[in-house]
Amino acid sequence: MEKEKIKILLGHGSGGRLMRKLVSEVITAEFGMEEPLLDSAILELNLPGKAPDAGASRLAFTTDSYVVSPVFFEGGDIGDLAINGTVNDLAMTGAQPLAIAAGFIIEEGFAVEDLKRVVRSMSLAAKKAGVRIVTGDTKVVEKGKGDGIFINTSGIGTIDPMAKNLSPHNIRPGDAIIVSGDMGRHGISVMARRNGIDFDPPLESDTKALNGLVKRIFSFSNGEAVKVMRDPTRGGLATVLKEFAMDSGLTMVIREEDVPVMPAVKGACGLLGLDHLYAACEGALVAIVAPELAESVLEAMRHDEAGRAAAAIGRVVAPGQYPDRSVILETLAGGERLLDMLAGEQLPRIC
Amino acid sequence: MEKEKIKILLGHGSGGRLMRKLVSEVITAEFGMEEPLLDSAILELNLPGKAPDAGASRLAFTTDSYVVSPVFFEGGDIGDLAINGTVNDLAMTGAQPLAIAAGFIIEEGFAVEDLKRVVRSMSLAAKKAGVRIVTGDTKVVEKGKGDGIFINTSGIGTIDPMAKNLSPHNIRPGDAIIVSGDMGRHGISVMARRNGIDFDPPLESDTKALNGLVKRIFSFSNGEAVKVMRDPTRGGLATVLKEFAMDSGLTMVIREEDVPVMPAVKGACGLLGLDHLYAACEGALVAIVAPELAESVLEAMRHDEAGRAAAAIGRVVAPGQYPDRSVILETLAGGERLLDMLAGEQLPRIC
Repeated sequence: MEKEKIKILLGHGSGGRLMRKLVSEVITAEFGMEEPLLDSAILELNLPGKAPDAGASRLAFTTDSYVVSPVFFEGGDIGDLAINGTVNDLAMTGAQPLAIAAGFIIEEGFAVEDLKRVVRSMSLAAKKAGVRIVTGDTKVVEKGKGDGIFINTSGIGTIDPMAKNLSPHNIRPGDAIIVSGDMGRHGISVMARRNGIDFDPPLESDTKALNGLVKRIFSFSNGEAVKVMRDPTRGGLATVLKEFAMDSGLTMVIREEDVPVMPAVKGACGLLGLDHLYAACEGALVAIVAPELAESVLEAMRHDEAGRAAAAIGRVVAPGQYPDRSVILETLAGGERLLDMLAGEQLPRIC
Repeated sequence: MEKEKIKILLGHGSGGRLMRKLVSEVITAEFGMEEPLLDSAILELNLPGKAPDAGASRLAFTTDSYVVSPVFFEGGDIGDLAINGTVNDLAMTGAQPLAIAAGFIIEEGFAVEDLKRVVRSMSLAAKKAGVRIVTGDTKVVEKGKGDGIFINTSGIGTIDPMAKNLSPHNIRPGDAIIVSGDMGRHGISVMARRNGIDFDPPLESDTKALNGLVKRIFSFSNGEAVKVMRDPTRGGLATVLKEFAMDSGLTMVIREEDVPVMPAVKGACGLLGLDHLYAACEGALVAIVAPELAESVLEAMRHDEAGRAAAAIGRVVAPGQYPDRSVILETLAGGERLLDMLAGEQLPRIC
């Protein structure tokens, strides 16, 4: 009798524990990638003509596939989402984007008009972020073998010399936890749309590029202020903090009252039975910052359009006081709630 | 009444005329890309620490999505195909691969065992080509919204200083047309498999990396020998030559008797009603070479495993004698046949 084969589940694409296990056991081990995985890989370039005494030339390199459903949603579409997402993955390693490559997998029967709209939206997003889309690829699959359009965007960026080695390994007890804006807006906006819930005014995705904000952080920073940054996409704020906790061996404690969230997002969460702390942002970042520099970093962020609502939301705590490598939410009611990583995902195909 | 929307057809993903039109009208124009499109974009790097008098540091950057069906075929699978294809797109601009990023779009229900097999095959292909897979992304879509597994691979490479500006614009009347191996093997192998035609011995795809072959060409070359190279994937040899003809304004004349092709490929073409001149190779290249250096380039190629069957197959002809920007096949029977670009594709989802 043939052994039952283990199958891929939707939850394997979630950003949660299932995915972390699959990626770590099946993919990164085979490819010999170093953990913790960052949003972009860092390449040290040894190019002909480079003065030997100069600092290393460092490039960031990243890739993301976008399968968001629906393709068009309030505040954006799969096109600007794909550009902004890749710009942001570069930015999270302190890089400014140099070039983007775009790969399209289109389902037979998709409207050319819709393709044009998506491509236009990519083009505008790229202009806004100051990056060129330099190369691409187009594949078509039979009707029923895809879902409208999937887009892969890969990006190369040059790393700001002030951004040393951003990594969860740099996190220390006492560090401040900062977010650049309100949480969960993209995920909840797409879910509301998918469930036919309308808001007036519409609840729009926060999709936007963060490279300008990051530039501002590093033009202020002495290079020691920011330990690590990550954009809380799949799995949201709670998942990013849990990753930081696991990779640093420390505890992340946040205060519910200080986490920025739009009232409409909270309302939709109530209707849909979702938690905004696990919902994707596509235009916000979480940073762990040296405590004495937290106020200055916040000040720098607030000078940027993308950082107006920046807030300190918590602190890093040494092991002992809480369960090992945990994320703790100090609730409005004065209690404490453990924020674990979800096994699968509350929101499939959100990006 | 709503106007009927124009829909994407399978043929739009073919590498033929339909695709060229779609890409040129809808995508590259919007992104402001410069034509002719090369297999990889070329980035001139201006990095801190580079001596100002040094030659420019040039990077190649490319992306490709793979949707081949079936996922496993004779001689390879979607995994090594994806790695070799991206390595080869870099190699066609004279680059050695530096790093690869891999994006997976997996259909719910795909066997984890098959994913492992694909990932292993990518890992082996990368090792063989001497490149690291440094970053990746995994998405999962619902059953019926994908087709097993799609893989996007993007690559960065450093361009050999001897490879100046490879471009169809360099092609001149009198140049020699060279191929590195036999034509159409990958496409016909996959089509035979899809149609349940078995060969003994099996007709295997030619999927392999060409960066070693390219290195050999440029370690021999004085940098002026090779005008342009391209790997004849979708649309095969005839399509690549038609692109060269259109972009250079010249005519490409090839001799049927000199085009290498395996007897099994010719046999399968007869059974399936296909033409090997339009079928994809995944481990061969077409080069346009200065005539006085053609024999030396061939000699250099034949020293490489991937170039054993390298052959001169024709010549570039000035306008006047044949229809403008045409590709001419001098047939075995002594006649002449016009090889136009196909509108759509004889072989969907071949890569």
